[in-house]
Amino acid sequence: MASEDIRHYFDWAATAPPAFPCKPLEFLGNPSSHHSEGRAAKLALENARSRCAAVLNVPAETLYFTSGATESNCIALHSNLFRKAGRVIASDAEHSSIRENVEVQERLGRQAGRIAVDSSGRVNAKLLEKSLEKYGDVRFAAIMAVNNETGAITDTAAIRDVIRKFPGPPVHLHCDLVQAIGKIPVDIPAWDLDSASISAHKIGGPRGIGLLYLRRPLEVICAGGGQERKVRPGTENTEGALALAFCLENRAAPEKIKSEYIPANRRWKKLLNALKTIDRCVIIPRDREEDGFSPYILQAAFRGIPGEVMARALDDLGFSVSTGSACSSSSPERPVLAAMGIEESLSLEGIRISQGWTTTDGEIDLLLEAIAEVLKYL
Amino acid sequence: MASEDIRHYFDWAATAPPAFPCKPLEFLGNPSSHHSEGRAAKLALENARSRCAAVLNVPAETLYFTSGATESNCIALHSNLFRKAGRVIASDAEHSSIRENVEVQERLGRQAGRIAVDSSGRVNAKLLEKSLEKYGDVRFAAIMAVNNETGAITDTAAIRDVIRKFPGPPVHLHCDLVQAIGKIPVDIPAWDLDSASISAHKIGGPRGIGLLYLRRPLEVICAGGGQERKVRPGTENTEGALALAFCLENRAAPEKIKSEYIPANRRWKKLLNALKTIDRCVIIPRDREEDGFSPYILQAAFRGIPGEVMARALDDLGFSVSTGSACSSSSPERPVLAAMGIEESLSLEGIRISQGWTTTDGEIDLLLEAIAEVLKYL
Repeated sequence: MASEDIRHYFDWAATAPPAFPCKPLEFLGNPSSHHSEGRAAKLALENARSRCAAVLNVPAETLYFTSGATESNCIALHSNLFRKAGRVIASDAEHSSIRENVEVQERLGRQAGRIAVDSSGRVNAKLLEKSLEKYGDVRFAAIMAVNNETGAITDTAAIRDVIRKFPGPPVHLHCDLVQAIGKIPVDIPAWDLDSASISAHKIGGPRGIGLLYLRRPLEVICAGGGQERKVRPGTENTEGALALAFCLENRAAPEKIKSEYIPANRRWKKLLNALKTIDRCVIIPRDREEDGFSPYILQAAFRGIPGEVMARALDDLGFSVSTGSACSSSSPERPVLAAMGIEESLSLEGIRISQGWTTTDGEIDLLLEAIAEVLKYL
Repeated sequence: MASEDIRHYFDWAATAPPAFPCKPLEFLGNPSSHHSEGRAAKLALENARSRCAAVLNVPAETLYFTSGATESNCIALHSNLFRKAGRVIASDAEHSSIRENVEVQERLGRQAGRIAVDSSGRVNAKLLEKSLEKYGDVRFAAIMAVNNETGAITDTAAIRDVIRKFPGPPVHLHCDLVQAIGKIPVDIPAWDLDSASISAHKIGGPRGIGLLYLRRPLEVICAGGGQERKVRPGTENTEGALALAFCLENRAAPEKIKSEYIPANRRWKKLLNALKTIDRCVIIPRDREEDGFSPYILQAAFRGIPGEVMARALDDLGFSVSTGSACSSSSPERPVLAAMGIEESLSLEGIRISQGWTTTDGEIDLLLEAIAEVLKYL
């Protein structure tokens, strides 16, 4: 049994341990300055952008450095505030930085709408079509690539087909890639995305840096000094951009995804199968199979044990799991699970287990032992 | 004469060399997570906040970590988008992250207005009163503490008196402290500010972190996971917050400001006096005296030499100066100088020289030699 001294981290969906080179005392000027120090900073920034673009297979000029995926989501979504007509819709499984900003738009008098999710927390072609038809005036749709509570993978190609074939003015397709990048194959061009969000700290980068992909520049609600071609103002976080480029190359290159997917999937299958043998354990969704789910995130409930009690008990034994998205931890509600049709009593018993690149088969065994230990007493 | 190999940096108003401890491989969890790693991160974040609060002499709960001063300005200003009535006014000398966001509000149908500045680029009590009277429905005023082009220091106590004595509903007083912090004494409680913005990278901190002071929480345009008590969403930049706390303690504590002010002022007086003896040099504003100006920023024009040519010539000799705010470098216009009533021909010849904590008397001599050298040929 693991002691409290040796930690086993199973909350990679919240944040990952840092894994990037740091040169804190190297002075790069302000990339907007025209002198030597400024030009060196600008070169470094554009080098970082090109490297990110190469990994993501998009033109460098479509990538904008932001402070993180929350800001990326906000920039893309709030470009709609300048639109006089038409509606924003977002799936019921979106991260709070989409969901709550849709509410902001409604408070400001804009029309908004919802896309229902299936029992896995996934938008499918039929549900999207239904939503587009219901409102009739949709101009912007936000659909995440991987559900951050259940790991359900969106069939982005099917989503694309519905969006592109729908009659009427074009619909902007925005995709939150936070739990997809570095985990499953991501193909922005093939998915025909208009915009997408990426976070650095989920793939070993520092906090405070992320990317916004924009097929075309958008009008933005937060303006300023014209940095990032007027999409994201403020002195560019050059060091963060370089660290993000390193992490994308290191973790999100197609061959890396492929090579890590197999052992990750094997570990996850082992965990899933073992959990299924536990009487009091309910996998969420109940019919979860390997296919269609990221092998990095798993949601499970233990009957009779509130999720936060289970998480605390495991924490005491040295295991870090969460009770859902860290970004919603200030609220006891589980809106994504509710949208999936999970009954409230079960959803309050849910814990999220997520793995990463240092997770081992041995740690899965230890986690299962720890769960068994907790179940003896609770 | 300095060679190109030895650089002399005189653009501290754009950004400062990094001067903070970096522990890149220390893993702090997501501060919103409830497990051991998350709680440690939360503790570190609150430790950083308390240390910043101690330096700034404000309650810790009034400080919110943001991605930088541009975002801080934006959050404070755009809280007005939720207001049905009343008007935002901003001084004509504000940073682009205020000025351009006032325009965003106008594009979204909100009323806005201006506060004229005097020939030094400063708002004074009379100009503010005139603006408040003219509009009659002002609810929010943005006035920077130190002009980032000329170094002119606002008489914040006089501004406060006008704002607080003005009849009618209270006016929110927002102050951009970016060029004040670590340079001149700042007193948020005495100045009776409702909100204020601070950037880390101008005082030796990393890019991508800043502070927003809010006397009371505001409704925000960019929502999300409820972090920073719903004022600033997104996973908290814990490492950045710790670095900012270090830099504030290191550079902005009252005794530090005091001890650095005297030598900085002596160097600046020397530079100013020497520049005044140069026939072709015009100090901007022409009547600049020591009093009322920050001894860290100076604007000067050299007749017959466009500012960018002068900056480039000095850069070739190893000296970094700018032609104005780095955040406005993408535009050749000089709106702040225009607002001061500086004729366009002179403003296009302006360069900004700014010093910092490593600047020496010897570097002032070398800069003056370099300017003399350039003036021989141009």
